[in-house]
Amino acid sequence: MRQSQLFTKTIREIKSEEGSTNAKLLLRGGFIHKEMAGVYSFLPFGLRVMNKIIGIIREEMNNLSGQEVFLTSLQDPEVWKKSGRWDDKVVDNWFKSKLVNESEVGFANTHEEPLTMLLRDYISSYRDLPKYIYQIQTKFRNEKRAKSGIMRTREFIMKDLYSFNRNEKEFRVFYEKCAGVYMRIFDRVGIGKLTFRTFASGGSFSEFSDEFQTISEAGEDTIYVDKKKKIAINKEIYEEGILKKLGLKKDDLEEKRAIEVGNIFPLGTKYSQALELNYRDKDGSKKPVIMGCYGIGPARVMGAIVEIFNDERGIIWPKEVSPFAVHLIQIEDSQKVKKAAEKIYQDLQKQNIEVLYDDRTGKTAGEKFADCDLIGIPFRAVISEKTLVKSCIEIKKRDGKEMKLVKISQVKKYIC
Amino acid sequence: MRQSQLFTKTIREIKSEEGSTNAKLLLRGGFIHKEMAGVYSFLPFGLRVMNKIIGIIREEMNNLSGQEVFLTSLQDPEVWKKSGRWDDKVVDNWFKSKLVNESEVGFANTHEEPLTMLLRDYISSYRDLPKYIYQIQTKFRNEKRAKSGIMRTREFIMKDLYSFNRNEKEFRVFYEKCAGVYMRIFDRVGIGKLTFRTFASGGSFSEFSDEFQTISEAGEDTIYVDKKKKIAINKEIYEEGILKKLGLKKDDLEEKRAIEVGNIFPLGTKYSQALELNYRDKDGSKKPVIMGCYGIGPARVMGAIVEIFNDERGIIWPKEVSPFAVHLIQIEDSQKVKKAAEKIYQDLQKQNIEVLYDDRTGKTAGEKFADCDLIGIPFRAVISEKTLVKSCIEIKKRDGKEMKLVKISQVKKYIC
Repeated sequence: MRQSQLFTKTIREIKSEEGSTNAKLLLRGGFIHKEMAGVYSFLPFGLRVMNKIIGIIREEMNNLSGQEVFLTSLQDPEVWKKSGRWDDKVVDNWFKSKLVNESEVGFANTHEEPLTMLLRDYISSYRDLPKYIYQIQTKFRNEKRAKSGIMRTREFIMKDLYSFNRNEKEFRVFYEKCAGVYMRIFDRVGIGKLTFRTFASGGSFSEFSDEFQTISEAGEDTIYVDKKKKIAINKEIYEEGILKKLGLKKDDLEEKRAIEVGNIFPLGTKYSQALELNYRDKDGSKKPVIMGCYGIGPARVMGAIVEIFNDERGIIWPKEVSPFAVHLIQIEDSQKVKKAAEKIYQDLQKQNIEVLYDDRTGKTAGEKFADCDLIGIPFRAVISEKTLVKSCIEIKKRDGKEMKLVKISQVKKYIC
Repeated sequence: MRQSQLFTKTIREIKSEEGSTNAKLLLRGGFIHKEMAGVYSFLPFGLRVMNKIIGIIREEMNNLSGQEVFLTSLQDPEVWKKSGRWDDKVVDNWFKSKLVNESEVGFANTHEEPLTMLLRDYISSYRDLPKYIYQIQTKFRNEKRAKSGIMRTREFIMKDLYSFNRNEKEFRVFYEKCAGVYMRIFDRVGIGKLTFRTFASGGSFSEFSDEFQTISEAGEDTIYVDKKKKIAINKEIYEEGILKKLGLKKDDLEEKRAIEVGNIFPLGTKYSQALELNYRDKDGSKKPVIMGCYGIGPARVMGAIVEIFNDERGIIWPKEVSPFAVHLIQIEDSQKVKKAAEKIYQDLQKQNIEVLYDDRTGKTAGEKFADCDLIGIPFRAVISEKTLVKSCIEIKKRDGKEMKLVKISQVKKYIC
């Protein structure tokens, strides 16, 4: 992409009040735009990062035999009354509205109920199970306080997978498999080392659920981490009896602030009983389906990445989620440099390397470098008269100091 | 995809009342699920078709130098009051709700206002223009009557491109270019021959807008088509004076019912003036930006395709938007056939051919063929003892009668 044609620009100082590092840097870099408190649009750079994160999640969900659907936001109150979750006293973050005929509708904050209803059309026998179904789409939550930048918003994209199993054993096998896949996802997006599977409170059907918590001062949660065992426990259930049950020792635990980047939750038969999603087992008996849910918020993950990987100059994207692989910068406006830069831009693209090309005229090298550091692409590649003499580009890693002259023909090898 | 693992099934008779052919066939085939009147979820087959259509549209938008963004559904009333479109008397299909603090919010039915506001942060000089920005995402419209299946719903995905130009001349060049790209999109999804660029009423800034109307009895519009000139005129402006101005003759026109699959609309300075999106021109004068909008509803397109391409047995997808390239059917449960079918399934996938593989046991050939015709993939490929003897698959086109034995090694060549 040519930076001269991009409609966004970096912003030196943002107008609105933003407490969080992620919102500040993403707004300044032109990744997002604030519409209201807790409501952000995604601009070209932001959408590219989001799509990278979503792409990784989708790939891993498909490997888990997940089948993707796209459910609606508009919700029929009758479905939610069956589970008791239409009432604002039970679920306090509904956005509700009315159809023209005055009947109420809701905007989905989660999708257990409609998906359970939907499956009644398709599941009747043990032969129809297990099934794993996921969605990646917008949810709405009427948060009292929007905070933490793009990590807690009133409108956000969620990946939710729902599992439908015949029995507890089959469910548990999948649940553990999914927990493993979650760790792989956090590894792939670059936050694996700081992310811990964390015991948290369960529901009526399970003593515990599992959160995936990424250590960061910007987090809203407090967890106790056992670094050796690579697990943690949420403060909400941090007590002697539970520690003992989990085989954790107080002395091995460190208190940390953390961001909840994902969670997986055994639902038991809570929704299948309320909404009558049953199946006929081999022996002819009718049984409720065993369910589980598995969530990751791609924007929450994106926010966490920015909170962790930044310095005083800007964002430092991990390779796998960076909006581009390389930021190509032409720092002199001479015909010779322009022509060479143009050729390299074309060549890199032909090699399927995603390039942001700073072809803007009338900007100093300093201005271009400052923008480059703020945007945070892993590699900066500078072309000037000086580098051209040697048929080279000067490459610098965003998170390093060393500058290296790399032969133009070797660029792909160097950055991939 | 293995049909034995798919969670959806074909449905012989649908429970809900559906007047339209597209909803009937899509519900029966397991492409969509009805949540409420005018509110449909997309199941795996439906989402695949939707993504094919969206993929084509996105490619063409990028070729037009469009930059993709993802805007929010939640809308700040203050922004819409500036253009006068917050009032329910002006826009009668708003869904509105309230934040916890009781202030009002809307759910976007279109995005001219927020995008115009957003661009105030980035456009100030003639050097910042032109810009072309698009989005592909959900919109909400509180329709009085939901009808026509997935073609007029209360929640739907839209592609909207917005153009921002310096002057009328620059705008018109882009507008005509975009009109051409629209025709290419409709060609690519398979409805080009039946789709006509259609003069329709304009707004305050232009006498006409342009609709893209696809001839079908299921359409809500009446148009008059000049087949030779490959253009049409909407009934709403069908009168002597206008015909003369457009150089159309009554005798050359045929009255047709049609589905509006897209429209492009000159907005002039309506929103840039209301929301003060101005730029400084070369001569130093301040001018409002000239805008245009360009919409296509992927679900509307999908509905139109089903309305046009179907027979008494089911849907007949055009190649480019079909959920799969080929429907592989194993019609005998012998080990030999199973093993061969499995191998062909793997081989075709390795050749990047999208295969729906009917590996279900306990279904008759008749049942499998009926499902196959209902789902409507362009090629049916049957494997049986009989075909295996000749190292062949029996291939039949969905829209043909002839069955042909094709060597397994030649399948790709035959269907691509």
